[in-house]
Amino acid sequence: MCRHGRFSGFVVGRQHSGDRCRTVTLRRHPPVVKAPRMQARITLEDVAALARGCAVLGTGGGGDVRPGAIAARRAIREHGEVPLVSLDELPDDALVLPLSGIGAPTVSHEMIHGEDEPVRIAEEVERIFGRPPAAVMSSEIGGGNGVAPVAWAARLGLPLLDADAMGRAFPEVQMVSMYVAGIPADLVVMADVAGNVVTIRPVDGLWSERIARAVCVAAGSSALMADYVLTARECAGAVIEGTVSRAIAVGRATEGAADPLAALTAELGAVRLLTGKLADLDRRTTGGFARGTATVEGTGDDRGRTLILEIQNENLVALEDGRVRAMVPDLITVVDTQTATAVQTEALRYGQRVTVLAWPCDPLWRTPKGLETAGPRAFGYDLDYLPVEKIA
Amino acid sequence: MCRHGRFSGFVVGRQHSGDRCRTVTLRRHPPVVKAPRMQARITLEDVAALARGCAVLGTGGGGDVRPGAIAARRAIREHGEVPLVSLDELPDDALVLPLSGIGAPTVSHEMIHGEDEPVRIAEEVERIFGRPPAAVMSSEIGGGNGVAPVAWAARLGLPLLDADAMGRAFPEVQMVSMYVAGIPADLVVMADVAGNVVTIRPVDGLWSERIARAVCVAAGSSALMADYVLTARECAGAVIEGTVSRAIAVGRATEGAADPLAALTAELGAVRLLTGKLADLDRRTTGGFARGTATVEGTGDDRGRTLILEIQNENLVALEDGRVRAMVPDLITVVDTQTATAVQTEALRYGQRVTVLAWPCDPLWRTPKGLETAGPRAFGYDLDYLPVEKIA
Repeated sequence: MCRHGRFSGFVVGRQHSGDRCRTVTLRRHPPVVKAPRMQARITLEDVAALARGCAVLGTGGGGDVRPGAIAARRAIREHGEVPLVSLDELPDDALVLPLSGIGAPTVSHEMIHGEDEPVRIAEEVERIFGRPPAAVMSSEIGGGNGVAPVAWAARLGLPLLDADAMGRAFPEVQMVSMYVAGIPADLVVMADVAGNVVTIRPVDGLWSERIARAVCVAAGSSALMADYVLTARECAGAVIEGTVSRAIAVGRATEGAADPLAALTAELGAVRLLTGKLADLDRRTTGGFARGTATVEGTGDDRGRTLILEIQNENLVALEDGRVRAMVPDLITVVDTQTATAVQTEALRYGQRVTVLAWPCDPLWRTPKGLETAGPRAFGYDLDYLPVEKIA
Repeated sequence: MCRHGRFSGFVVGRQHSGDRCRTVTLRRHPPVVKAPRMQARITLEDVAALARGCAVLGTGGGGDVRPGAIAARRAIREHGEVPLVSLDELPDDALVLPLSGIGAPTVSHEMIHGEDEPVRIAEEVERIFGRPPAAVMSSEIGGGNGVAPVAWAARLGLPLLDADAMGRAFPEVQMVSMYVAGIPADLVVMADVAGNVVTIRPVDGLWSERIARAVCVAAGSSALMADYVLTARECAGAVIEGTVSRAIAVGRATEGAADPLAALTAELGAVRLLTGKLADLDRRTTGGFARGTATVEGTGDDRGRTLILEIQNENLVALEDGRVRAMVPDLITVVDTQTATAVQTEALRYGQRVTVLAWPCDPLWRTPKGLETAGPRAFGYDLDYLPVEKIA
């Protein structure tokens, strides 16, 4: 059995690299340590903690959490608190609607989603399946895509599933647990702020990404998307459970802490790569992505050291003296050194005092199929993956 | 009543510019002169004439007619001759499937449509409407999009409607008679050679074009598309009837003629703008379009004169000494001076001996909504439209 309690089990290869669990032959094995359920509803007061946690899990991407938090609070005020349900609380044939914003984070700052996109997507899904969705799921717990589903669920009057498809943020449509679990990527429904609805029946996840990205760019580099509409039965073993509760716990860890950075590092089980200041930034928004590099020069105990972050919406690789300190799919997040608040890629500013943290990804991303999907080579880096805890 | 017998009547404005008919208040008025029905089936022998006629009506665009002709002959051999039906032969609630290839003609030379695209589109349409389509219609009679529907209809075992949505070729998705007739552009179904199917529910025709073009470029700048799936009842007054028969008649006009150019000019009622040779070409394939200019220097009686053609997939404006000789939506076609065979934009070659013909478009394009949709300003030319026969 693997040591990561939240990992719910995938038939995705013969081994978990960097893990005691060498062979997974069951479609799903019960978590050894079940993460405690935080609450049965997401309240107004939970939104701030959820947003802070999602920002940390966003590894610089997934979109700014603030617009999602504003939308979530407004939707809770208008439509009431959002029930947070686990998979086993849903009937087997209940339709789960995994929603996410797609596009360049830099654009989503200025072009806010409307309120009707989830409604139009749910209508299209009901038209296709002959029944309405029963729950909303975040496709991506990291960044704004982890927070905004609270608003979308409230708007639809549906519960939110305590799960997501990444356990972090990733920039491309096919980089989801369902793809790694081998479920065919046969349906994507998109809605944009102008009112257009696009349904894609792709031949595979890579075409799904290619076409959805083109539609997104045509819509102004921002759209709402349902990817892999699934029954609850299909979700079992194909989504990462407990991640909404996890994000709230990460967000709560720094609340009232004397040393927020130490509290966050402990909660995440993270390695502190460097504490310093932002010395150089090279960012551009191209093809629907925010790409670039950020250079952090060490201060205090880390004076004289330099860390370079490679960015493609998310922080993908951390390099020091040409040597990799951490790499995707492990999580690399830049936080404010004083407050331990995560700094999104597009909020990086010259001179900022920051600390770079890195910690292990969900074990599913360390399987051969997981690494093929979202390992360093999937992003064009000619690197053999090494787990961050082994490098450290 | 208007003098164009084939015009079946649109409520698209208060006048037909360049036409005796000043007011159209009926949704549909019967044609004064009904074009004689050429035949009830499209046979192997008809394909060559149809292809020649479609090339002429393509005004340089609509894609090469040769791949469509090959596909049509092959499909007729495999599946039998294709019934050619008029609108009044279809039940009111019969679904008409308007099909066309979308993309850069230069790409469609090298990337041939597969055989399954129409099947996947028909399946998706049946999934959406709960019943299968009853007939195929060419969205665009000009160019390859006028010929290939024979193959698509044969492959689907459906009749071909003797009508289209342009009466010529146009480069953009919203430039169709249904749009001019005010029918909401609320459904586009696309299929590509890779097997992807995309359904677009656009808020209007312009968004339809924008998103469909993006999907097309993502698919390699070539895809098959059903735009405006309509019942036969909705087609009445919203499609241009008789254009398949018309294309075959245009193609037959030059068969065995002693002077093919004179025969074609007479059949079209065209103005001969210039006879000469191709002196200069500037073409590029960008954003899914073939754009550029072609310069024809006069020879023989036209020596010393120069005609410049502005191209955006189709020949849009013909200029002589800075003065417009003909402009979109009127039809401008370059033909081989000896054989009167139309020369597509992408087949233009330096030194070719050609004649440029221009003739009036269907009256619907001369209405205010028609000109707004596909007049010179719709293509970025700051020109007030003047009918070609008035300029001449």
